[in-house]
Amino acid sequence: MDRKVGVLGGGQLGRMLAEAANRLNIKIIALDKEGAPTKQITAHPDHVTGSFKDPAAIRKLAELSDVLTIEIEHVDVEILQEIEKTTPVHPSPKSIKIIQDKYHQKEVLISHKVPVAESIALDSEKDLPRVAGEFGYPFMLKARTDAYDGRGNYVVRQLSDFAKAFAALGERKLYAERWAPFTMELAVMVIRTSNGTLAFPTVETVHENSICKLVYAPARGVSSAISQQAQDLAKKAVDCFDGKGIYAVEMFLLPDNTLLVNEIAPRPHNSGHYTIEGCYMSQYEAHLHAILDLPIPERRLRLREPSIMLNILGGKTADAHLELANQALARDGTVHLYGKGDGSLGRKMGHITVTAPTMAEAEAQVQPLIQIFDKVVSGTAISDSSDAKSSLSPLVAVLMGSDSDLPTMNAGIQILQKFNIPHTVRVTSAHRTPEFMAKFAAEAVNKGIKVIIAGAGGAAHLPGMVASHTTLPVIGVPVKGSVLDGVDSLYSIVQMPRGVPVATVGIGNSTNAALLAARIIGVGDDRIQRQVEEFAQGNADESLAKDAKLQEMGSDAYLEGMAKKK
Amino acid sequence: MDRKVGVLGGGQLGRMLAEAANRLNIKIIALDKEGAPTKQITAHPDHVTGSFKDPAAIRKLAELSDVLTIEIEHVDVEILQEIEKTTPVHPSPKSIKIIQDKYHQKEVLISHKVPVAESIALDSEKDLPRVAGEFGYPFMLKARTDAYDGRGNYVVRQLSDFAKAFAALGERKLYAERWAPFTMELAVMVIRTSNGTLAFPTVETVHENSICKLVYAPARGVSSAISQQAQDLAKKAVDCFDGKGIYAVEMFLLPDNTLLVNEIAPRPHNSGHYTIEGCYMSQYEAHLHAILDLPIPERRLRLREPSIMLNILGGKTADAHLELANQALARDGTVHLYGKGDGSLGRKMGHITVTAPTMAEAEAQVQPLIQIFDKVVSGTAISDSSDAKSSLSPLVAVLMGSDSDLPTMNAGIQILQKFNIPHTVRVTSAHRTPEFMAKFAAEAVNKGIKVIIAGAGGAAHLPGMVASHTTLPVIGVPVKGSVLDGVDSLYSIVQMPRGVPVATVGIGNSTNAALLAARIIGVGDDRIQRQVEEFAQGNADESLAKDAKLQEMGSDAYLEGMAKKK
Repeated sequence: MDRKVGVLGGGQLGRMLAEAANRLNIKIIALDKEGAPTKQITAHPDHVTGSFKDPAAIRKLAELSDVLTIEIEHVDVEILQEIEKTTPVHPSPKSIKIIQDKYHQKEVLISHKVPVAESIALDSEKDLPRVAGEFGYPFMLKARTDAYDGRGNYVVRQLSDFAKAFAALGERKLYAERWAPFTMELAVMVIRTSNGTLAFPTVETVHENSICKLVYAPARGVSSAISQQAQDLAKKAVDCFDGKGIYAVEMFLLPDNTLLVNEIAPRPHNSGHYTIEGCYMSQYEAHLHAILDLPIPERRLRLREPSIMLNILGGKTADAHLELANQALARDGTVHLYGKGDGSLGRKMGHITVTAPTMAEAEAQVQPLIQIFDKVVSGTAISDSSDAKSSLSPLVAVLMGSDSDLPTMNAGIQILQKFNIPHTVRVTSAHRTPEFMAKFAAEAVNKGIKVIIAGAGGAAHLPGMVASHTTLPVIGVPVKGSVLDGVDSLYSIVQMPRGVPVATVGIGNSTNAALLAARIIGVGDDRIQRQVEEFAQGNADESLAKDAKLQEMGSDAYLEGMAKKK
Repeated sequence: MDRKVGVLGGGQLGRMLAEAANRLNIKIIALDKEGAPTKQITAHPDHVTGSFKDPAAIRKLAELSDVLTIEIEHVDVEILQEIEKTTPVHPSPKSIKIIQDKYHQKEVLISHKVPVAESIALDSEKDLPRVAGEFGYPFMLKARTDAYDGRGNYVVRQLSDFAKAFAALGERKLYAERWAPFTMELAVMVIRTSNGTLAFPTVETVHENSICKLVYAPARGVSSAISQQAQDLAKKAVDCFDGKGIYAVEMFLLPDNTLLVNEIAPRPHNSGHYTIEGCYMSQYEAHLHAILDLPIPERRLRLREPSIMLNILGGKTADAHLELANQALARDGTVHLYGKGDGSLGRKMGHITVTAPTMAEAEAQVQPLIQIFDKVVSGTAISDSSDAKSSLSPLVAVLMGSDSDLPTMNAGIQILQKFNIPHTVRVTSAHRTPEFMAKFAAEAVNKGIKVIIAGAGGAAHLPGMVASHTTLPVIGVPVKGSVLDGVDSLYSIVQMPRGVPVATVGIGNSTNAALLAARIIGVGDDRIQRQVEEFAQGNADESLAKDAKLQEMGSDAYLEGMAKKK
């Protein structure tokens, strides 16, 4: 607090950094043109007007600041190397220099045994046939420097693209990269501090035309093991460089579930905007804490709720993007506009964050906004996106050995519906479909299911077998058969061996199974816990009303009424 | 968007309003002194310098703005009534005028049948004996106007307080108020829009020396029925006034669970700061949306997670309060400092918000910060606060009807210890200590307990009775008695009526009860879930080893070995 942080660049990243700094009475001094986004929300006369590539302006900024940092990596590094002798600069100018040249960045990563896509440096267009021979089509042609938001990448699909690709990427030094047949793009924001390296959650990024469109936190359908591997790889990649602060690591997830590092940005990043609402601490707070040696308790980097970030990009007119912002206000998005004035096609004008208790709800909320995004950016309305997930992803799985158990299980399903608990109902048998049953149970936890209810009759192995294939709590409902009154099922379900518990409820009592599932989810979800309370209150009121009626009518008349109802 | 909002006052409320406005490219123009907190984060030359009681300055502000609003109600209302003929003013000057005089505010509420504490307007100190005769001691003496943060309230406890009370409250017009023997203070932020009246959740406020210290959202231990009543009453109270925007309604909860309105503030309020992190939309966003006719989807007012707000008040030195801010950064709080320069005793310098998946976790996180708050404000170190939770508050309660059940329950307790799950073990009987049992069960959820394991034999009522007094999941362990082999206990525990589930495990199988508790806690706790997985892997390894040994030795030798062990 009471510190002065000089920032090279005054765009939206600096602006969101300033938001975090304002809350801590930390002064942000920006080097950029007059009225830049960062300067709009930091009112003081010490900002520096000029370019973050101008040595004199950078020197002036350093004189006014306790520490220097960047919000864009395309800065004059030589001056920063001179300045760091007297004023701390984070990340280190040496790291910025390496990262500025994406091919050199890649060489450093390879030297530290960080897996990356294979690359070849190019001297001229003449090298391309050789590259095509080596990599096959398609492959990526990339500018080594000054590349951002897709301006610097070209997908070469055939011989005839060569000239277009070179023309598009201009005079810069280029390199070619083998196409990574990724199933998903992942990203992790990593923080280097004086005490070590920390990571935010693993997120899924969706790019269109090489510009980030959507970020899903956490990455959808990615196991915790792979998420952990991505965090570990991201930390390893960042540890190749020096200097405190936040770094973005973009990765490819390949079909065999291995990971490649795509590229690194030594600053706050679009893929980390979700942290403002999504985590206990944002990437901007984390960056300030890191460069000022303030503490970063690791649990503040956890995700509070599933979150989706949708960029607000400019459209064909100066204010086309405002339609998306306005629609987000009317729905479920938190809108961030960057104060950048007029929009232009593909320019980042703001972003929207949607958070919800489940990813399925967040997806449902963001879906109509994605359609408006598509309309603004393409200028035409788009019909339902094909990869839109439709219904809410289930929290409870209701399994039964046979459809003949459905009448028994139905009362519980009604309770789940009443409580608005997303659920799936499946027929799977421990004896007839043992592989499907085992696979379903084993995958349940990664699908976001929190409790499994299993009903079965007779030998009734289903609940116990499901419990053997999952770490989730499993509730067993003994279903009464034509003989033995359900005692057979009860014993089969409740008398599990030590080590594999099944939460057994009364014979045929699927109502209690659902209420138990609600109590279990309610342990971490106040909304559900309140519904359990209200349900109990409803039952109490009903019971009190019956007693009042009994007092009023007397036993004889009451019994008569009961007989009539039957 | 692209709108200009003039704000009378430029303190922390205006500053947090500006934070929200900045994100929407809405321009905030503040009327206050140079460098006021609001002006620090809104860089433009149009702010007005002066007092929000100065007619000329207010007129100038109106000329620059599309709409006027306030962040403090002690403004010049006559000028606003003149201005509203040409520029919208929210809330309406008429409403502000009524609310400025707290006794008049009360008369209006009474005329709309809103319950309030009984009050008597006073002309002079001579009226006090009559008030004391009517209200008894203690009663409140309050200034009708210009009261805030406790400056304007005096508790009269005895005859000898009369002179002191009058001296403390100064020359202002006063009124006396009957003491409300409240069990809790509640507050609700209410939003009036063009389309109706909406409410944020009901929160609990804790005042010390008439200054807000803590806000708990939701109010702790308050049923959803009472929370709903508080929201309804707050909306009814606000509907007595005109004009769009946000209002705070402070209420008393009385021992008979009825509510009284204490007072209303026609602006963002300290009791609503928690909404910034706690809800999907903050009170500041809601105020902007209301006065600019932007949409407010009601579900964005929901609580995302239980939240606690702790004020950062000034101490005896100019920077004493920074100790609390620094400690919060090192722990789990989001810190908001207001840019108010030097602190003074009791001055609001900032606030901290802690949110967590459960209130018990949030309480555990805020507890050490409350102790620092007390030290800063009182200037002396406080020993362990009496209601401080010890470090490891139990997540699981293991209950048994009799100590004779302990040998059976012990295997489960060993598992909890092995998994490092904090737990408490208690003897309580549904039949011998029914009140203690009921109280323990009812209070468990607020103590942070997440799962209850109850073991019982014979009639075995304990698990079911405990489940009847809590919304937590309850696991029942049937304990085998000297007759009937435990089937009596099993049936008593598992065959609960519809509506009150008990998760029953096998007879005597407390191991599985503990493993089930671990699976339940693991739903929201990856560490525990991993332990469950590792435990299962351990069992699998053991079983595989046994099979390997059997293959090696053959059945005969293996059986011989087993016989020897016995």
